[in-house]
Amino acid sequence: MSDASLDPALLQRFTGIVGARHALTSLQDIAPYVSEPRGLWHGRTLLVLRPGSVDEVSRILQLATQTQTPIVPQGGNTGLVGGQMPDASGGQVVLCMSRLNTIREIDPLSNTITAEAGVVLQNVQEAAEKVDRLFPLSLASQGSCQLGGNLSSNAGGTNVLAYGNARELCLGLEVVLPTGEVFDDLRKLKKDNTGYDLKSLFIGAEGTLGVITAAVLKLFPQPKGKKVAFAGLPSVQAALGLFGLASEQAGGSLTAFELIGGRPYEFTLAHGARVVRPLASEWPWYALMEISSSRSLEDAGELMEAVLEAALEAGLAGDAVVSASVAQAQALWDFREKMSESQKPEGASIKHDISVPIASIPAFIEQAEKEVKCLVPGARLVCFGHMGDGNLHYNISRPVDAEDADFLALYRPVNDVVHAVVRQFGGSISAEHGIGQLKRTELIATAPPVAIDLMRRMKAVFDPAGIMNPGKVI
Amino acid sequence: MSDASLDPALLQRFTGIVGARHALTSLQDIAPYVSEPRGLWHGRTLLVLRPGSVDEVSRILQLATQTQTPIVPQGGNTGLVGGQMPDASGGQVVLCMSRLNTIREIDPLSNTITAEAGVVLQNVQEAAEKVDRLFPLSLASQGSCQLGGNLSSNAGGTNVLAYGNARELCLGLEVVLPTGEVFDDLRKLKKDNTGYDLKSLFIGAEGTLGVITAAVLKLFPQPKGKKVAFAGLPSVQAALGLFGLASEQAGGSLTAFELIGGRPYEFTLAHGARVVRPLASEWPWYALMEISSSRSLEDAGELMEAVLEAALEAGLAGDAVVSASVAQAQALWDFREKMSESQKPEGASIKHDISVPIASIPAFIEQAEKEVKCLVPGARLVCFGHMGDGNLHYNISRPVDAEDADFLALYRPVNDVVHAVVRQFGGSISAEHGIGQLKRTELIATAPPVAIDLMRRMKAVFDPAGIMNPGKVI
Repeated sequence: MSDASLDPALLQRFTGIVGARHALTSLQDIAPYVSEPRGLWHGRTLLVLRPGSVDEVSRILQLATQTQTPIVPQGGNTGLVGGQMPDASGGQVVLCMSRLNTIREIDPLSNTITAEAGVVLQNVQEAAEKVDRLFPLSLASQGSCQLGGNLSSNAGGTNVLAYGNARELCLGLEVVLPTGEVFDDLRKLKKDNTGYDLKSLFIGAEGTLGVITAAVLKLFPQPKGKKVAFAGLPSVQAALGLFGLASEQAGGSLTAFELIGGRPYEFTLAHGARVVRPLASEWPWYALMEISSSRSLEDAGELMEAVLEAALEAGLAGDAVVSASVAQAQALWDFREKMSESQKPEGASIKHDISVPIASIPAFIEQAEKEVKCLVPGARLVCFGHMGDGNLHYNISRPVDAEDADFLALYRPVNDVVHAVVRQFGGSISAEHGIGQLKRTELIATAPPVAIDLMRRMKAVFDPAGIMNPGKVI
Repeated sequence: MSDASLDPALLQRFTGIVGARHALTSLQDIAPYVSEPRGLWHGRTLLVLRPGSVDEVSRILQLATQTQTPIVPQGGNTGLVGGQMPDASGGQVVLCMSRLNTIREIDPLSNTITAEAGVVLQNVQEAAEKVDRLFPLSLASQGSCQLGGNLSSNAGGTNVLAYGNARELCLGLEVVLPTGEVFDDLRKLKKDNTGYDLKSLFIGAEGTLGVITAAVLKLFPQPKGKKVAFAGLPSVQAALGLFGLASEQAGGSLTAFELIGGRPYEFTLAHGARVVRPLASEWPWYALMEISSSRSLEDAGELMEAVLEAALEAGLAGDAVVSASVAQAQALWDFREKMSESQKPEGASIKHDISVPIASIPAFIEQAEKEVKCLVPGARLVCFGHMGDGNLHYNISRPVDAEDADFLALYRPVNDVVHAVVRQFGGSISAEHGIGQLKRTELIATAPPVAIDLMRRMKAVFDPAGIMNPGKVI
């Protein structure tokens, strides 16, 4: 697909649907849509469309299918795998969903919120809070990422342990199909066994099967109190033991369990802006735990104390602090959330967003480290993540004395080594970030051929003209 | 498809795959597979195959696709909508999954169990218990229903409120596709964003897309104590208030909230074998609540007392008992579980398995009652169900002085009236039992045409020869 396909007459037809004001064509207006904050993904386009209604989305996709014009849906442009970025041809039209930003309804009795794709995640959280409810999906980018992107990438984050990922939080969807037809399944039902689960298919499809325009999401009662603990651990094996113990004692009240390696802890102390040192002593591993109580803050505190007492007695933790105020709890979370950016000043890094069965985490970490260091002696492992979900951000910073470029030249071989270990443990090479452009070739090469074949044939069912986000996922 | 298609040579080829001992052909051997315990569904077949391995299932389906022989997968034969039953032609082969009954692995650290499709649900629960874990899926038929059927029908039951339905409890699947290929996705991962969610498609597909042979299921810590309460309520509006209050105070510890109408309560007192009267006083509505504590039995008791105290004070409940022993808790559950069978002695009934948004339950009940009584004056509404999921078993017993046959002649018009009200409230005509044969025509007639079209085209992708459970779902 070359620029030629976006001839002026066609541009004019697309523009006519949304109006000139919402059809961006100047380089300057387009710039924010063809690169992203981290600067890793770039693309080109001649046209960014900003529809203001489901009907406009429908007419855009209908025209796109008729004219075989590729469409790249984009939400908050925070995706990490390039799923939201047009290719370099200039022939793909960016469909910006930001103007569909209405919260259509909140129903605190049914515990649901119905919101459009362009609503910023934090606005969903805040709308829920106003009616004393919790919308638990929580990501570092929540101030700018949008619901449509969250659903299209089946977003995870720090609350999956207790509340599930985006797919599990979604009860109903409204989707514009590539033909322009609207699939309206905006129902507030926890139970519905009427045919195949189409909803789950669109969620996580990264805009390759249609465009999500609105969703019904689950709300939960607001916890009455939360306590956050930060513990120093002698080993990753102890982290596994602590997780088991905390799950056992706190059940569904354990709302987060984050594993933090010694090195990302050091990096964050050294480079994190305005971070507070969580513990006086230093440990090979750390855990951040959150307990949420439906009863009271005191109750959350007592439960946390009981867990930590048992952990210290069993030698699973060596030192621990518990937040004594909301501000302290926030400071501990802030430390965790600054972990990614605190890796930057240490030079180039090679990142992995993987999951393995929880019981395999210690063995995975041991073997992956061995193999990475064999390939890159001096490589510095920066491992942290959502241990309760088996999901690790298994990152590697360059050796202290290496050049960035030399290290990054090894991106693919390092990926290959790490992902081979992931597969050996029955894990996933994309736990929560998705496939996008970044992992498409690897997915196709390494997933079972029967799965790839089914996915391709399903893609053809939904999108016979192949206009939806081509070059992504499959 | 007539008998003729199952010619002796073809029968012989199928028999050769499983061995003569496991290929049933005599009327007597076949009888248990062509009717079911309630006697509502009957079919015919010349051949029941009982494969003993995934490889045998694969070879059966491969041959079936080659020869265009329809296959009807069957588990414990407890389905309520005829999904497991061959048609009357005799030309469909029943594929009984009971011999694939191995629990392949339990991993208490990862909180997973990997079990084959033919494992009886109760055996999964008991295997989990042995390692001090909970597998929460719980149904009246758990002593005979099998995992493959539970997943294929996306089973619900009484624990969905806190733990989710079968789809949400499943982490990984092994499925034999109609071509005989094996889709192996038996992974123990809570997070995996590598392409389209094929797993969710097979779950709830009632064997129309392939045959589930094994699954990885989530386990949970065993609660340390449970309390069950039975409360008398002045109105269904009060039930909604009580549910809100209990959710708010108990959070994820509220593991069941069942609504029970005055009439099914009376029927169960009158006809339930060895049931114990839960309350001395009589009320228009009742609720059965269960609270499970990760801490202790006392803790569950205190939480339950706090909920009931607040409910009595607010006038949401008028009377209540709390179980003082495991036996008493069991007796209260037993009362709830005998509700279905206790309706039988009251004569013919017309049943509905519906869901509506929780907030709409009172309005739904009021309007549906009005319309049903307009159609059948004297009809007796027997409404109970999983209120916390918006799921009601909205049954109707014939008028006291009516003949069964006269009442049953109104089956379809009564269904139509009730389901029209369900749709008006954005509900589902099959909340947990599935579509099977029973609701297929209605689903096709009333679901959005765009959804039906997508489902049919997906069916063609998975099952191009159309051999998988034809005449079911879609």
